[in-house]
Amino acid sequence: MGLKTAKEYKDSLKDGRLVYLGGEKIKDVMANPMLRTCIETSALDYEMYDMPQYRDLAVVTLEDGEPISRYYHMPKSGEDLVKRHELMVEATRLGGGAIPFTHDIASDTMNAVNITATLMGKNEYIERANNYRRYLQMNDLSVAVAVTDVKGDRTIRPSKQSHPDYYVRIISKDDKGIIVRGAKAHITAAAYFNELIVIPSRNMGQEDADYAVSFALPVNTKGIIQVCHPTKTGFGPWDFPVEDRPVRWHTDSLVIFDDVFVPWERVFLCGEWQFAMQLVYNFAYYHRHTAASYRIPISEMMVGMAQAMAEYNGIDKISHVREKITDLVIYVNILKSLSRAACVDYVVHGGVPTPNPIITNMAKYHFASKYHDCVKIVQDMAGGLLSTAPTYKDFNNPEIGPLIDRYLGGKAGIPAEYRLRMLQLIRRILDPEIEVLAVHGEGSFEAQRMTIYAEAMADILQYQKYVEREAGIHRT
Amino acid sequence: MGLKTAKEYKDSLKDGRLVYLGGEKIKDVMANPMLRTCIETSALDYEMYDMPQYRDLAVVTLEDGEPISRYYHMPKSGEDLVKRHELMVEATRLGGGAIPFTHDIASDTMNAVNITATLMGKNEYIERANNYRRYLQMNDLSVAVAVTDVKGDRTIRPSKQSHPDYYVRIISKDDKGIIVRGAKAHITAAAYFNELIVIPSRNMGQEDADYAVSFALPVNTKGIIQVCHPTKTGFGPWDFPVEDRPVRWHTDSLVIFDDVFVPWERVFLCGEWQFAMQLVYNFAYYHRHTAASYRIPISEMMVGMAQAMAEYNGIDKISHVREKITDLVIYVNILKSLSRAACVDYVVHGGVPTPNPIITNMAKYHFASKYHDCVKIVQDMAGGLLSTAPTYKDFNNPEIGPLIDRYLGGKAGIPAEYRLRMLQLIRRILDPEIEVLAVHGEGSFEAQRMTIYAEAMADILQYQKYVEREAGIHRT
Amino acid sequence: MGLKTAKEYKDSLKDGRLVYLGGEKIKDVMANPMLRTCIETSALDYEMYDMPQYRDLAVVTLEDGEPISRYYHMPKSGEDLVKRHELMVEATRLGGGAIPFTHDIASDTMNAVNITATLMGKNEYIERANNYRRYLQMNDLSVAVAVTDVKGDRTIRPSKQSHPDYYVRIISKDDKGIIVRGAKAHITAAAYFNELIVIPSRNMGQEDADYAVSFALPVNTKGIIQVCHPTKTGFGPWDFPVEDRPVRWHTDSLVIFDDVFVPWERVFLCGEWQFAMQLVYNFAYYHRHTAASYRIPISEMMVGMAQAMAEYNGIDKISHVREKITDLVIYVNILKSLSRAACVDYVVHGGVPTPNPIITNMAKYHFASKYHDCVKIVQDMAGGLLSTAPTYKDFNNPEIGPLIDRYLGGKAGIPAEYRLRMLQLIRRILDPEIEVLAVHGEGSFEAQRMTIYAEAMADILQYQKYVEREAGIHRT
Amino acid sequence: MGLKTAKEYKDSLKDGRLVYLGGEKIKDVMANPMLRTCIETSALDYEMYDMPQYRDLAVVTLEDGEPISRYYHMPKSGEDLVKRHELMVEATRLGGGAIPFTHDIASDTMNAVNITATLMGKNEYIERANNYRRYLQMNDLSVAVAVTDVKGDRTIRPSKQSHPDYYVRIISKDDKGIIVRGAKAHITAAAYFNELIVIPSRNMGQEDADYAVSFALPVNTKGIIQVCHPTKTGFGPWDFPVEDRPVRWHTDSLVIFDDVFVPWERVFLCGEWQFAMQLVYNFAYYHRHTAASYRIPISEMMVGMAQAMAEYNGIDKISHVREKITDLVIYVNILKSLSRAACVDYVVHGGVPTPNPIITNMAKYHFASKYHDCVKIVQDMAGGLLSTAPTYKDFNNPEIGPLIDRYLGGKAGIPAEYRLRMLQLIRRILDPEIEVLAVHGEGSFEAQRMTIYAEAMADILQYQKYVEREAGIHRT
Repeated sequence: MGLKTAKEYKDSLKDGRLVYLGGEKIKDVMANPMLRTCIETSALDYEMYDMPQYRDLAVVTLEDGEPISRYYHMPKSGEDLVKRHELMVEATRLGGGAIPFTHDIASDTMNAVNITATLMGKNEYIERANNYRRYLQMNDLSVAVAVTDVKGDRTIRPSKQSHPDYYVRIISKDDKGIIVRGAKAHITAAAYFNELIVIPSRNMGQEDADYAVSFALPVNTKGIIQVCHPTKTGFGPWDFPVEDRPVRWHTDSLVIFDDVFVPWERVFLCGEWQFAMQLVYNFAYYHRHTAASYRIPISEMMVGMAQAMAEYNGIDKISHVREKITDLVIYVNILKSLSRAACVDYVVHGGVPTPNPIITNMAKYHFASKYHDCVKIVQDMAGGLLSTAPTYKDFNNPEIGPLIDRYLGGKAGIPAEYRLRMLQLIRRILDPEIEVLAVHGEGSFEAQRMTIYAEAMADILQYQKYVEREAGIHRT
Repeated sequence: MGLKTAKEYKDSLKDGRLVYLGGEKIKDVMANPMLRTCIETSALDYEMYDMPQYRDLAVVTLEDGEPISRYYHMPKSGEDLVKRHELMVEATRLGGGAIPFTHDIASDTMNAVNITATLMGKNEYIERANNYRRYLQMNDLSVAVAVTDVKGDRTIRPSKQSHPDYYVRIISKDDKGIIVRGAKAHITAAAYFNELIVIPSRNMGQEDADYAVSFALPVNTKGIIQVCHPTKTGFGPWDFPVEDRPVRWHTDSLVIFDDVFVPWERVFLCGEWQFAMQLVYNFAYYHRHTAASYRIPISEMMVGMAQAMAEYNGIDKISHVREKITDLVIYVNILKSLSRAACVDYVVHGGVPTPNPIITNMAKYHFASKYHDCVKIVQDMAGGLLSTAPTYKDFNNPEIGPLIDRYLGGKAGIPAEYRLRMLQLIRRILDPEIEVLAVHGEGSFEAQRMTIYAEAMADILQYQKYVEREAGIHRT
Repeated sequence: MGLKTAKEYKDSLKDGRLVYLGGEKIKDVMANPMLRTCIETSALDYEMYDMPQYRDLAVVTLEDGEPISRYYHMPKSGEDLVKRHELMVEATRLGGGAIPFTHDIASDTMNAVNITATLMGKNEYIERANNYRRYLQMNDLSVAVAVTDVKGDRTIRPSKQSHPDYYVRIISKDDKGIIVRGAKAHITAAAYFNELIVIPSRNMGQEDADYAVSFALPVNTKGIIQVCHPTKTGFGPWDFPVEDRPVRWHTDSLVIFDDVFVPWERVFLCGEWQFAMQLVYNFAYYHRHTAASYRIPISEMMVGMAQAMAEYNGIDKISHVREKITDLVIYVNILKSLSRAACVDYVVHGGVPTPNPIITNMAKYHFASKYHDCVKIVQDMAGGLLSTAPTYKDFNNPEIGPLIDRYLGGKAGIPAEYRLRMLQLIRRILDPEIEVLAVHGEGSFEAQRMTIYAEAMADILQYQKYVEREAGIHRT
Repeated sequence: MGLKTAKEYKDSLKDGRLVYLGGEKIKDVMANPMLRTCIETSALDYEMYDMPQYRDLAVVTLEDGEPISRYYHMPKSGEDLVKRHELMVEATRLGGGAIPFTHDIASDTMNAVNITATLMGKNEYIERANNYRRYLQMNDLSVAVAVTDVKGDRTIRPSKQSHPDYYVRIISKDDKGIIVRGAKAHITAAAYFNELIVIPSRNMGQEDADYAVSFALPVNTKGIIQVCHPTKTGFGPWDFPVEDRPVRWHTDSLVIFDDVFVPWERVFLCGEWQFAMQLVYNFAYYHRHTAASYRIPISEMMVGMAQAMAEYNGIDKISHVREKITDLVIYVNILKSLSRAACVDYVVHGGVPTPNPIITNMAKYHFASKYHDCVKIVQDMAGGLLSTAPTYKDFNNPEIGPLIDRYLGGKAGIPAEYRLRMLQLIRRILDPEIEVLAVHGEGSFEAQRMTIYAEAMADILQYQKYVEREAGIHRT
């Protein structure tokens, strides 16, 4: 019972959850075309179990013989980190650049929850974390993770904001559990996943103790209200159809906790403000590594799209074109090398192998900060038709279709249809949402840079000592 | 009769033109919601005549007392170039970043046609150019300009392509005129303008003489077929409405010349292959300056959007935020300074003051090559809600609206609505089409760089002589 | 008597000044080979008076018919700013990239002193400034300017430092004048100029009133001690000689004020801490524009050196080489366009036309922040011989000279000597001191960026209002 | 006898070699102060054998129990590549950023010679390579490598140049060996090493067969003439002495082959023009990895110098300073991660593990192309005193020394001497020769980029296929 099928996953979503989209309450998420596109994307994670080429990567067998998702296996070695990384890359390649997401962020989070419980040294937290991990393993649940609070004024601590609910907080406790209030933004896939894990989004001071809270709940728990944003539904009437490569995409939710009860066995942090930062940081080390893994396929696609359009347009041998494609190649290979190096040079936190924080943040920052430059190169190779190309319906119109076919051909042997299809793919993949995701997903540029600086401080000071010796400076 | 009203402009478009959009033949362009949005955008140029604050900028009075559009006035001085530049900036500001376009590209083109005619020294061409200019002045026509051929293999000359029609060409001549065939891509606004001027898109060799052709025609001429691409229609049901600031946008056409007759009085180049490059280059000097002018308002808007979101989010005093806004300020001010300097340091070609080619191409290249970086900064300031924000319908929903209002407020005094509206504006303005326009509009990066290099060659060699003297090298 | 000869300038330096260099007290600055190289460089400013091609640029005739240096003429118009700018460019070209410096920084400073006096509204200050300017005009004096205090801890105000003398301060006053103590660093050319003007280096608070001091003195005043740093002496024994293009260079001084008396008629600020910033900023507007002007010749030289080496090596037609030279061309032309635009779009402070602060700081920042990239390009074009080339003595050695001549030739027609001479010039000009000067001369990167941000704030807020209107946000 | 001492190395250099420096013939290289500084730098490699902390890294024990330099051990695994890499890093750290060089380039070259011999399948070449390697192992010789020909016109093949000797070539052969003529430039340390290996510098065509030549010789072979360039001699009279950290530096030679005889047993390529490129490329894969390894210590030093000066100046907590130090940290860590990843992801050529070509070239390109930016940051942190600081002699002068001490102190607790010493180190290390080395050492930027592009072509085409599938394009 450790592995679900895609169908079981889809069926599990009819559970009374409260989801709004475009101002409407959504009764059945599978019945909404936007959400269905998202759900099909996520289902890929479950489908991989039955694809022979992925089975070994996707599944780990427990000592008792139970097969579980690799994501819910606690890593024991650098090799485990590499495998996890490769699984994420393959799943995202399968999604045509879109990540299925069902277990990976939960995996990042539960590793951080375990590490933090160990660092706190509180047995009940360790036990709860282990039990919940076991529950996820046995039921193969899809899990969204809620981190980013809505924050109000970004420069003011949680307890000093103009109202007390800009960060999720504990409003009461009793012997059964706690009641929480607040809202978390940008919660990917929460509308069509089973569970929701909540962790804080920043370090806390003593006065913010009520905001130092972490817990897990089923998504259909009373008081959880989700507001999704509209997204792609699939190919439109003007699009060239690609039967075997459906459109993959996701939406996110604003998740509102309207005084929600959490039983104690699902509470992982409750007022221990000194450990909020540990939880956030350990989550971030894992999750930014996950993020770097996700971006490999789209980076590869950018190389492929640029090369395809350069070839179609007959310019792939021109000097400045080769220079630009070389820039893309460097981009993708630095991302790959750093992602892998972060596994090989892992650190151990709370007994758990953790992707190297400096290298991980460099990988993520590399991807994110240079993404727009790569988009620019693909657009440069594509030509102005990227915006101005006629549609599939024009192409099929008997009066103008033949003219389009004649006039929009590329170099000899490249029919207009190749160019129109590739341009459509580029438009679909290089969506502004992906730019925003590069900028904000898994933390801002500044968050990554600050982590690199802080994590490298010991090295920095050692380098300073080295040059002081070289300069003949003997500090007292 | 030298100035039209906006209504006259709109009425003039019911003329039997052959336009396809989304695979459908469009009978009445004003009746199509996509094209209507575009037409209303273009109409601004005509509305400016009656706005007192713009009248002096928009209108020039001929010696005979006839008021005409400034665009159709041949520049006589650097001051004229500055005025023209300011008019384009103001018109685009009025369009909320969208250029009305009705006369400006035609102005660039006709100046280049006049210059080329003078350089050729052919009186009939000079006369035709003057007559056509007079016709545009007297009828205040909106004019699209067709430059970019569909090109097939970009590395092969027109006459050597896999079929002969990848560049527009003359297929026959008689005593009344010429017949042309071919197609031009990315022709902005051609579906809703009156006239179409065609010029070559590259230099030509002797064997390409049939492709060295330039002419003008009414858009409804027999044999001209246009295929537009779908575009924005205005605010959608999920959008916050902004009554007094309607959505402004444009579409482009693939314009097919299906054996079209052009009378001799509208032919400006016909086989003089040696002058194709002169025509293209002089057009490009003007048009890239026009392009740089266009981009000033959108650059200003990026500063404003970044600062607004930074303020709303409470981060505008944070060091890295100020650094990023400083980067945007530098971006817009270099663009402004260079655009203006190109007018002040103009050159004279064929007797006509022409924006300084080096400075103009630097201004355009500056805008285009750094645009994506600026988008990244605005996205960084905006926060992840730029993708994940709830819609206007959610905001108005009585169940979730109050929750959204409570949770998505910004710093004290900034209600959720401000943030949601500004995010909507950013999404609308920073459209991928604008990225593609930055990359490809008015010539590629490489075209601008090659022009800078070629135009600066005399300076480069002079600098070399200077350093050779300094080095004691006396070349013989 | 308003104009001095170069000889009079040199003779004027034997005045008992106290100068150390390399740990030795220098009796006669002209007798020291390092300082003589510097003095000859400065003398160019005086030599230009008698060169017909420069006379009109270098000299302004007062209403009474007296010819004076243009630098000491108070600018009245944008045209005056342009002329001043052109004079600095030409003088620096004459110096082979080295600025003569004799009057220009003094000019920047006295303009700022006049502006500040006017803004303070104190007649005695206005009068003193006018008298001192008249004195400089009539005696055509060379003047160094001392701005940068030694500063101790950069983050601590003058009055709070670990000792009170990290910024120059007033230690006593009486009816004859004031006594000052402290030290100023990086004071260019002070060892071989006549006068020294001192201004504060930062804004001041009330508690720093004793540090708000500005004054002028002859360099040989008792208590002024200078420590110069070693510098170039001219061509060395291993260098190819270039008779008519001697090595030009400068040194700077640490200037120590060891309780120095200043008579009241030479005091321009004395405790008016509220105006310290005005004085610094107005100086900086002028002086950064001066700095941008200075850098034009060296930027042109970089283009020339890159092109020369590319040609000699036979690679000037190769695509990536042309791209790199295009980058240099853009660099120099943005610098030129902005420098000029800052004059044309001048502002008026205290009644005096002042180079546009935003554009000026952009010009300076452009030069400074991209300088190292340009160095890299020149080094790339030069080839590894830039470091490894044999010397002039090897070239003249009868045994190995012919082999060097044979093996180090370039493309056909380029003898080894051309390459060796050009490489020597590049080594001499692209000295690390020039990199440091780009980084620190006339204020740090951060100082320029902060000025741009502050000066542009009104524009930024106007752009914000514009986008708020576009977004339908009506702030109350 | 497999390991030499430093003394034996130094003694071995009195062998009658023909070396010129500064136009003079150098009888005894150890007696020349410039060359002595270089020799002491190189001797470090031999000194490491006897330092316990380095012994295991520096020495490999052969099966027969003979200890040899690790460099002359043929790598068998990725682990061997990592060890070799670490040895180079440690040796360079020991040299204060200067590489000892004695065996490493030879190691790169002999690996390439072995690989090429295997690929050619010629037993005599394999045998000669093995014998020569054994000879180097047993005698622990220092070896320079001559690659770069003087090249004349860079765009013309060897056999088509204006004279036939712009590339080293075979001028005759007999049964004893070959006679070669030509010259190689930038040959590091050849003046003070024992042997010289020569390989071609480019691919060759059939007509260039005489230029496809590789061989090894003792440096004192008749007909080998070296011309070195002047370099540092150690600390000068104005420098603060640092007894235990002497100045380390190198010089390079122009090596002229004035009709030099090479016996057959030292010839590794002789006319097999088809394999010239293999030899060059395999050398480059190794050598660029070596280069990346070398640069790690200097990159670490840049972080240390920037942090030291930031601390001394009191600015290390300021936001923009932390950002800049973060940039340096990213720089050094990308270099480290890629260098290591290139070993872990090695490829096998001719049976020999070879550093991954793509990652290696990225590591080298990363270092080289961003080096100037890092120099700029260090200069920014250092302050203007980097150029203008008084000397050690001033500091020791009893009259001005106390004033310098008083005025040039940094933040509380940082005496002037710390700052002056660190500034001296920065000036010494960030020498323009190192900039030129970054640009040209181990191949130009363009060479690295072209290798990345070529090596990645298979991946690029695979990515193209992937996106074509995603777009529904089925190529036939």
